[in-house]
Amino acid sequence: MAESIRWTNEGIVLLDQRQLPAREVYLTCQTVEDVAGAIESLAIRGAPAISIAAAMGVALAVSRNLLPDEIETVFEAACTRLSATRPTARNLFWAIERMRAEFDRVKSSSLQNIQKSLAAEAERIKQEDLAINRTIGRLGAGLLPARCGILTHCNTGSLATAGYGTALGIIRAAHAAGKEVHVYVDETRPLLQGSRLTAWELQREQIPCTLITDSMAGYFMRLGRIDAVVVGADRIAANGDVANKIGTYTVALLARAHDIPFYVAAPTSTIDQTIGSGEEIEIEQRDIIEVTSVLGTRIAPVGVDAANPAFDVTPSLLVSALITEKGIIRAPYQVAIKAL
Amino acid sequence: MAESIRWTNEGIVLLDQRQLPAREVYLTCQTVEDVAGAIESLAIRGAPAISIAAAMGVALAVSRNLLPDEIETVFEAACTRLSATRPTARNLFWAIERMRAEFDRVKSSSLQNIQKSLAAEAERIKQEDLAINRTIGRLGAGLLPARCGILTHCNTGSLATAGYGTALGIIRAAHAAGKEVHVYVDETRPLLQGSRLTAWELQREQIPCTLITDSMAGYFMRLGRIDAVVVGADRIAANGDVANKIGTYTVALLARAHDIPFYVAAPTSTIDQTIGSGEEIEIEQRDIIEVTSVLGTRIAPVGVDAANPAFDVTPSLLVSALITEKGIIRAPYQVAIKAL
Repeated sequence: MAESIRWTNEGIVLLDQRQLPAREVYLTCQTVEDVAGAIESLAIRGAPAISIAAAMGVALAVSRNLLPDEIETVFEAACTRLSATRPTARNLFWAIERMRAEFDRVKSSSLQNIQKSLAAEAERIKQEDLAINRTIGRLGAGLLPARCGILTHCNTGSLATAGYGTALGIIRAAHAAGKEVHVYVDETRPLLQGSRLTAWELQREQIPCTLITDSMAGYFMRLGRIDAVVVGADRIAANGDVANKIGTYTVALLARAHDIPFYVAAPTSTIDQTIGSGEEIEIEQRDIIEVTSVLGTRIAPVGVDAANPAFDVTPSLLVSALITEKGIIRAPYQVAIKAL
Repeated sequence: MAESIRWTNEGIVLLDQRQLPAREVYLTCQTVEDVAGAIESLAIRGAPAISIAAAMGVALAVSRNLLPDEIETVFEAACTRLSATRPTARNLFWAIERMRAEFDRVKSSSLQNIQKSLAAEAERIKQEDLAINRTIGRLGAGLLPARCGILTHCNTGSLATAGYGTALGIIRAAHAAGKEVHVYVDETRPLLQGSRLTAWELQREQIPCTLITDSMAGYFMRLGRIDAVVVGADRIAANGDVANKIGTYTVALLARAHDIPFYVAAPTSTIDQTIGSGEEIEIEQRDIIEVTSVLGTRIAPVGVDAANPAFDVTPSLLVSALITEKGIIRAPYQVAIKAL
């Protein structure tokens, strides 16, 4: 299983996901700016993975020699910078809040103790994510038939998390449990996380899969090849609405039209109780070069207008179940989420 | 307006659509095999355009010096070869049947007369297509509000036809009539006819447009930006089911879910009365390299399995109207199509 991120003596080492599957290149971040840049440029992506990167980034910020009266300023600057990297994934802010709580707990102690505590908290977030993924995997696998075609969108595997994965963790767990799964992998334009990352992970794990363009999902549903859809989430509102990679909403509507269950797998840190519905979730709008080109090759006329929303919102009405580490949640989501 | 195909003294000259929008390169076909290769490799594509290419190809076959007892064999070989290029578009077979009827009418006359008659028939098919497109454009434009966002999929413009276009002809006509149209152009993976061809045509005509990935159509519908969907067709069954570029079915379901009219624009030569429903339409399965790479750049791991159906079928239930040169047809389609 690929490891998306680890903190070593050299710095925070990331598998540069922009270069997959052609090259396995590792990137070492030695400053907060390096980490922020890696998140913004998608060298690391996936809601849980960027939350770990941000937590490690905050700990990294205070890991150098600082005067006592500098510590808080440096800490706050790191939190501010890392919070400004990407707006949609809830987990990023959740991790920074957790680092802040830990900082508040230890800030009156020695620099060494602050450093040790923050580094330990970041590592704890990573290890907890791994454990959460395994629980989500086990719970979700239980929902899948012994033999099934599963459609997934984007990448929610070990690359998108501390390891194992959320939606892809469920597929991994079902496969490991001996279920006969065949995965239909949406390529996930514009950035092709499906063809570049999910297909790469499934191939390494020898889990049978077929790569398709996003536009083919309906065709295969109509042919009866898809028995379930499993996707991840970047932010879940209090009413169960789900922000996830652009195209997820379309997949959810297709699933509903074909009477196929549509499952969302995510740690509870993805849930944002302060947001009433998906309408309020900020959708990141990215550079249109991602739409007018593919891996550096221009595909559209120069000067043409384009749009590049990175996420969309799937209303909870279309969600068959949310699979979290605390259990499988079904409608009415408002009530079930509150009860968590 | 770009001219997709014309017959000159040099041979059949095609604008090589594989090279757009980067380069405007013309390809000259001097044999039936050249024409067949151009259709198979998608140097020319679009149901009406390939029907013209096939008609010209048949005429080209008998344009050289032939002995009287060779003519029929050469003619039949050309029909067979050109029929085997692509299976889904009805218009291709319709055009070859028309050429055969003309051949049968004149085959007992002189070689020179056969040559002249077939060349004239091919040119007539082209000129009729132009006139048909203008009628479709005028009729379809009447369905659009004075100010509207229109989503289209694939390319149905002057490149896909003799000129002007079917679905894009409607957009062109609405724009020319002073309607304020804004076109959302699905990029149309795998072969990107939307970003490479439709965006290129709209830009040349200065019709406002926004290029999006196929996965974004639902997002923009939910935002209320799309007032109508207009697409073309490759084959229409007797019950009104529509085979068209892969992804069309998804767009139709999205339109239905958002209560947006979904219009199909096509000449009546696209209708196949011998096919009862869309289930019977043969769907071309193309090389998976088109899915695992983009314009020659590999995007997926080597050895990964992929699928590449080039078309899908939209059930007539999802079609708000068929816009043909003989009028606008609405449900019940079985009856309306029979009445044509």
